[in-house]
Amino acid sequence: MPVIALIPFKPVNPKTRLSCVLEKEERESFARMMLADVVEAVSGAGCTPTIISTEPYECRETMVEVIPGGLNETLNTLLAGQKGPVLIIMADLPLATPQAVMQIISSRQDIALAPGRGGGTNAIYLAKGSSYRVDYYGASFLKHKSIARERGLTCEVIDSFRLHTDVDEKEDLVELLIHGRGRSSEYLESLGFTLSIEKGRVGIERRDPLELKAR
Amino acid sequence: MPVIALIPFKPVNPKTRLSCVLEKEERESFARMMLADVVEAVSGAGCTPTIISTEPYECRETMVEVIPGGLNETLNTLLAGQKGPVLIIMADLPLATPQAVMQIISSRQDIALAPGRGGGTNAIYLAKGSSYRVDYYGASFLKHKSIARERGLTCEVIDSFRLHTDVDEKEDLVELLIHGRGRSSEYLESLGFTLSIEKGRVGIERRDPLELKAR
Repeated sequence: MPVIALIPFKPVNPKTRLSCVLEKEERESFARMMLADVVEAVSGAGCTPTIISTEPYECRETMVEVIPGGLNETLNTLLAGQKGPVLIIMADLPLATPQAVMQIISSRQDIALAPGRGGGTNAIYLAKGSSYRVDYYGASFLKHKSIARERGLTCEVIDSFRLHTDVDEKEDLVELLIHGRGRSSEYLESLGFTLSIEKGRVGIERRDPLELKAR
Repeated sequence: MPVIALIPFKPVNPKTRLSCVLEKEERESFARMMLADVVEAVSGAGCTPTIISTEPYECRETMVEVIPGGLNETLNTLLAGQKGPVLIIMADLPLATPQAVMQIISSRQDIALAPGRGGGTNAIYLAKGSSYRVDYYGASFLKHKSIARERGLTCEVIDSFRLHTDVDEKEDLVELLIHGRGRSSEYLESLGFTLSIEKGRVGIERRDPLELKAR
């Protein structure tokens, strides 16, 4: 049975913690590029992606369901109707690859969790969607482990930095410039972002794209 | 042939970026605990660990070589004499497990790299130690990929958040408190560190251990 991949997405004013380096329109474009990278990774792993958008959003290649409302409520309503396998994967994981997605969806446990940096949950695979309910925000990884335990579901933790790396802050762009091979890293480069090294630490800087081209 | 695991270690005044939450003696203890976790992971994966210490360091179970001097010079001198397989793994990877180490040492490529957060290299597996030279500091991951290319060596990038997570800063302790199962997370807990959640973000706080026990 093909795995349904639910990808929650916020198209309007997303990624506000990147406001220090990206304008609102750039953040919206960047979020769409990251989404495209995630869609490509899940499709490449054989999943059927559905974008769950808080606002109307047009996407030619992928099914979009517009559901305004809270993340948990939306996902739990959708899960209740799913007897088959479901993957919930965040839209801000531009390092995700088909291989990393394969790793989580080939779990033989009832549930597999890909933790995010800082206690979050970046992807959840459920052998049977309706067996589970999600509880995002805060230390959601620990909450998700508890929910599995309470429900008597076996649970595996997936060891992947590609699924661990969600892009929220300026420092996270370093990871994308180093390890990204998709549309979102291309987009950052087109805006003039490059790696910079100061006092041995790797950061990012933004230059005039024309100046970079001329080099 | 058993894989030799070289673990560079700095026992005196280590992890200065943790000075905001740990005293010098605590940082030294904490570094020893992280080292013990790494030694356990590599031993569990069947490697033969050797601690490469910048200063005299006593360790009952593990061989220690004391080599004052720069990291690159020290490692490159050691590598030159190694015709067999070598793993170089950093001492600040307390989330490492035998499974994660198995993943890197079972690579079929000439070299396998486990990237660290922020452009670093946390572990390097070499099918033949003497075929390579290391170049740490700065964006060492990119440098290590280039060196492999220059030398015509096939190279694999290992996708593991357990090897990706090096502990340098206060925020990294969150990862350890959530995912750690070894001596270093136990040590942090014994000092009174717990997770705290403020405005939906997960951080750490340090309380009086006696107060925590009384709860």
